[in-house]
Amino acid sequence: MKKIGVILCGCGYKDGSEIHESVGVLWALSQYSGKISSIQCFAADDMQADVVNCLIGQPVAAERRNMLVESARIARGNVLPLSQMKPSEYDGLIIPGGFGAAKNLCTFAYKGSGGSVRKDLADILITMHKQGKPLGAICIAPAILALAFKGKSFELTVGAKSEASAEIEKLGHKHIVCKVNEAHFDRKNNIASTPAYMYDGAPLNEIFEGIRKLVGYII
Amino acid sequence: MKKIGVILCGCGYKDGSEIHESVGVLWALSQYSGKISSIQCFAADDMQADVVNCLIGQPVAAERRNMLVESARIARGNVLPLSQMKPSEYDGLIIPGGFGAAKNLCTFAYKGSGGSVRKDLADILITMHKQGKPLGAICIAPAILALAFKGKSFELTVGAKSEASAEIEKLGHKHIVCKVNEAHFDRKNNIASTPAYMYDGAPLNEIFEGIRKLVGYII
Repeated sequence: MKKIGVILCGCGYKDGSEIHESVGVLWALSQYSGKISSIQCFAADDMQADVVNCLIGQPVAAERRNMLVESARIARGNVLPLSQMKPSEYDGLIIPGGFGAAKNLCTFAYKGSGGSVRKDLADILITMHKQGKPLGAICIAPAILALAFKGKSFELTVGAKSEASAEIEKLGHKHIVCKVNEAHFDRKNNIASTPAYMYDGAPLNEIFEGIRKLVGYII
Repeated sequence: MKKIGVILCGCGYKDGSEIHESVGVLWALSQYSGKISSIQCFAADDMQADVVNCLIGQPVAAERRNMLVESARIARGNVLPLSQMKPSEYDGLIIPGGFGAAKNLCTFAYKGSGGSVRKDLADILITMHKQGKPLGAICIAPAILALAFKGKSFELTVGAKSEASAEIEKLGHKHIVCKVNEAHFDRKNNIASTPAYMYDGAPLNEIFEGIRKLVGYII
């Protein structure tokens, strides 16, 4: 029986974890009750990079929100501080997308291939990868893996060719074009990715199908 | 081709719309691309009854959040003010659950069967029902229908027998015990309901199966 970690970073596509993708991961994992003993969400007990009014798409300068507290909305309270995540206890890890993945968990949104990953998360990813455990990333979250494993030549997808895929290739990885209802699995490196809302406006059932396939590679 | 409305009231199970259930509705609706021309979320441009820290379950007295702005997190910006909802333009309506459904959209959480529904929402529900259009409610949201249609003797489910089901029966309705992966359809009145997180801790794929069946009755 496997234990799977899910990394959240707030609640909403403009400033935290993309909600549909996060729920898609939890839904897909829930289909493996015979193979999974635990699904555990984690989020850093730190402030988000910003708070964005998702109705108008503008930052709310006066407001601050905590990643752990806001992630609890998606996790229905069942989320632990990222500092308590012990890589040795988990068999796989999945990171949903959303702008938060590129702003709160790393600086890809601001610096592209010149960015860096939060040290606590980078340490977890590198440790789990060394232990041969599968890592999954959705939407823009493969950029986190691209930064944490600079020069490792992973196969990653962020959907179609784009500015984001070019930055990922600058880090030494190979970008794989992938449909929204598919997931790409780099078997050699045990890395799965799926484009999800990198195809903005894609039907939710197709996004969920891509996430379901990604989870299948992780389990 | 049908147009379906979805009523949100914030973003999070303790003070707004339950996120998993809301996404489940959007996911299930997305499977009917051949039958649905539009899925439109609505939320009132008003403050939530409260803001709850979903990590510790305690209200945050100093904070206020707007239902429309927070619902945009779930709807990825595609949400209109409830005041713009024209019942004549829609073929069906679905209300996800969450404590917000019982606190922001009506006063069931505070007053049980003595509560009332926001006037704008009650007017929409009554108009659509008179027009013979299907209404769907998830988790605790059937309490909204119970209040808006007091004495109408609808068949509604909030899962197992409970304090909530007793209050619904006090309003003249018949409570139907229903499994989490099922939905109950009151054919005479064109009302569908499914328990979802009224079964706290239920597997998400079973909750989604119940929501999928509810959506099947609405379409």
